[in-house]
Amino acid sequence: MKDLKMLDLKNIKIGDNSLISEKVNIIIEDTLKYQWEALNDHVEGAPKSGAINNFRIAAGEISGEYYGRVFQDSDLAKWLEAVSYSLALKNNEELEGLMKEAIDLVVKAQWKDGYLDTYFTINEPTKRWSDLRDKHEMYCAGHMIEAAVANYEVTGDETLLNVARRLADHLCSMFGPEPEKRHAYPGHEEIELALVKLYHATSEKKYLDLAHYFIRERGKAPYYFKIEALARGGLKAEELFYSEPFRLSSKQLFKKVNLDGLWKPERLDYCQAHKPVTEQEEAIGHAVRAMYLYSGMADVAMDAGDDELAEACKRLWNDVINRKMYITGGIGSSSFGEAFTFAYDLPNDLAYTETCASIGLIFLAQRMFKMEQDAKYINVMERALYNTVFAAMASDGKEFFYVNPLEVWPEACHKREDHKHVKTERQKWYDCACCPPNIARLLIMIPEIKTDKTAKIS
Amino acid sequence: MKDLKMLDLKNIKIGDNSLISEKVNIIIEDTLKYQWEALNDHVEGAPKSGAINNFRIAAGEISGEYYGRVFQDSDLAKWLEAVSYSLALKNNEELEGLMKEAIDLVVKAQWKDGYLDTYFTINEPTKRWSDLRDKHEMYCAGHMIEAAVANYEVTGDETLLNVARRLADHLCSMFGPEPEKRHAYPGHEEIELALVKLYHATSEKKYLDLAHYFIRERGKAPYYFKIEALARGGLKAEELFYSEPFRLSSKQLFKKVNLDGLWKPERLDYCQAHKPVTEQEEAIGHAVRAMYLYSGMADVAMDAGDDELAEACKRLWNDVINRKMYITGGIGSSSFGEAFTFAYDLPNDLAYTETCASIGLIFLAQRMFKMEQDAKYINVMERALYNTVFAAMASDGKEFFYVNPLEVWPEACHKREDHKHVKTERQKWYDCACCPPNIARLLIMIPEIKTDKTAKIS
Repeated sequence: MKDLKMLDLKNIKIGDNSLISEKVNIIIEDTLKYQWEALNDHVEGAPKSGAINNFRIAAGEISGEYYGRVFQDSDLAKWLEAVSYSLALKNNEELEGLMKEAIDLVVKAQWKDGYLDTYFTINEPTKRWSDLRDKHEMYCAGHMIEAAVANYEVTGDETLLNVARRLADHLCSMFGPEPEKRHAYPGHEEIELALVKLYHATSEKKYLDLAHYFIRERGKAPYYFKIEALARGGLKAEELFYSEPFRLSSKQLFKKVNLDGLWKPERLDYCQAHKPVTEQEEAIGHAVRAMYLYSGMADVAMDAGDDELAEACKRLWNDVINRKMYITGGIGSSSFGEAFTFAYDLPNDLAYTETCASIGLIFLAQRMFKMEQDAKYINVMERALYNTVFAAMASDGKEFFYVNPLEVWPEACHKREDHKHVKTERQKWYDCACCPPNIARLLIMIPEIKTDKTAKIS
Repeated sequence: MKDLKMLDLKNIKIGDNSLISEKVNIIIEDTLKYQWEALNDHVEGAPKSGAINNFRIAAGEISGEYYGRVFQDSDLAKWLEAVSYSLALKNNEELEGLMKEAIDLVVKAQWKDGYLDTYFTINEPTKRWSDLRDKHEMYCAGHMIEAAVANYEVTGDETLLNVARRLADHLCSMFGPEPEKRHAYPGHEEIELALVKLYHATSEKKYLDLAHYFIRERGKAPYYFKIEALARGGLKAEELFYSEPFRLSSKQLFKKVNLDGLWKPERLDYCQAHKPVTEQEEAIGHAVRAMYLYSGMADVAMDAGDDELAEACKRLWNDVINRKMYITGGIGSSSFGEAFTFAYDLPNDLAYTETCASIGLIFLAQRMFKMEQDAKYINVMERALYNTVFAAMASDGKEFFYVNPLEVWPEACHKREDHKHVKTERQKWYDCACCPPNIARLLIMIPEIKTDKTAKIS
């Protein structure tokens, strides 16, 4: 396998008249400041975020209650990553000041042992790492590590990188193949690709090894997610009615599960933990999780020389591209589970096609291109970028789509329960706000992503 | 308004070679016996019914636990009605014996004051009439009254008719415009048309008056359903997570509602109680409920000479037929709520189009024809009969469809949550088994229904 030289973002210039340049400039000039306001709950008419407030509470600066989803921290992390990259393209003292303010909060919110997650810090400090399947601690850690690497690469400052190292060291102390460590992996993948980035930034091979371990341990029987739930003390009422936070269309729907239901295979499918990744034949479950997993697999395949993983990536890529991708580069055709369904099931009106899933597909395409150096991967990247991600942000950079169907009948979206996941207008923010800051960081990363190709030519 | 003479079922003969004759004969020869077995939980591989067992328990013959939905009694009532009609067409000692056995149970299950409902008798005897919106006591009463009238008309025996009279007298003592009575109406309509039938059978005008009262009281503010819930003692946990029994596709889904949610307008829309029926401009909510309500309205309009009701019937009929009916005579295009959505929203693959809704449409068409004597109503009746109801029963009379979409992609029905209400094969029985015995009674009634037209000619 050949690797490609990555160009330093600071040495890249996008032509002033390109569409990409226009989008990148909107992010720099308007979106990042706007999103800071949203994360601070200052945007009138937008759903509350609570993300920065949660960090203020966890940092001990104020008292208060945690607000939002268990993965609210990741919204700030994505913003930090985006702002960091933006400073490589254009100096902006205001954004730099806000960034430092945010980093200061993150530093203060980190535990002495490296742990970082405001949900557990505020709400359930004694229960950290007790529910890897649904509580997203590693997902949030992954985004913060990505932010830290971006911040370090652009600014040279090691403050956030040190947070990331301590956090990753904590993970290394908790998880791994050694008998005294937990043989586990996250419910929402993301940490894997982040650890590879941290490995590149620090040359610490243990981070690559941990990413490799998470990927290879995934889906082995007996299933870790069953073990940890038993360890939590059997069935509790909250488990009988476990929330389906992924179902945007009907946030208030709860699913009643019986004891067996808690472990039923489709819940493992949902997070690609139903069998070892090298045995997985088709893309399945939550589309964003799948994309982040496959991206991490490709990274590790290249850096660790794991050819089985590379083969799995190619197989899964082909399944997505040939059988489960819309013409727009949208993926994940079902609202229920924000998930893949089955081959060629691509309804136009019921499409979920989450913005984050297409962003994940772009990340995967980037890695597949690095691995194979075939322009077909760049074609898919461009398809998703131009037809889904660009369309998911308003031209003023302040409103966003989460769901991107190919056909919209507004009255049906308002009046049919099975169409309620479709919004007929872009929104200022979301209760589950993964997409807006993901769009920001993806667009600001484009110069880096796109120039993989240039790098080969030059 | 002109009324039409109804012919006695015993004097009607269907030509031996007709499709209708074929269907009626299957019901007589096979379906009724089969359904008795199903109601007795003796059909292998079929979901348990519990209906007859519930009556045995309520009758004091055995001890045990109530099984099934709150409206399980209505399954036996529909069967009794169908068997009664069948005896007008063909003697059958075995069916007659089973019928008498069932009637004996019903007699024993009735309270001294006339009350009859095995769910409350077994489970919550102190809570009868405490939840008219969701607990279906009047719905079950209506079906038992229909059965009793059929039984009396065909056999001349007054045993079941007396049960119906005592039950209806009990209703008359509980509900009505007088200050000491409850100013209420049922969540699931059906009692209205049944009371009109009982009025015809007994010439007791108080039954017609009560039907008229239920219909005219419906939808007046302050809403009775709110008053009764407050009377139950405010919010309880079971109200926070109230079941959505109407949603066949995902029985395990529960809806979390807040205090306001419990009263939110769409819950009233769902059972056509959002405004007085004479002010209702369009067909809305649960399609079966709507059809039974409109049928009762038409009955009362004719018998009580209420022209406002007749006008409302014509308006609502036109809305259904011109804007909300499939080409198959299917109605109710949404699985969620088994409901109407909005004008011209008729997706082929997501259609719910419950068998019972088309049966209700046939009942309504029969009444509209009686009212207007226009063949267009018979055309709709035939459309629904031939294209939906006939297709909903297998040729052997032992398997049934509940949901009747116009387009089926089997893999999607198995794998897409938003298509799971669609079964790709007819089922032996259902947990919510309203449709199979409804098909039986409808088909056996055809000679009577269809000959309204003949009656005019002759």
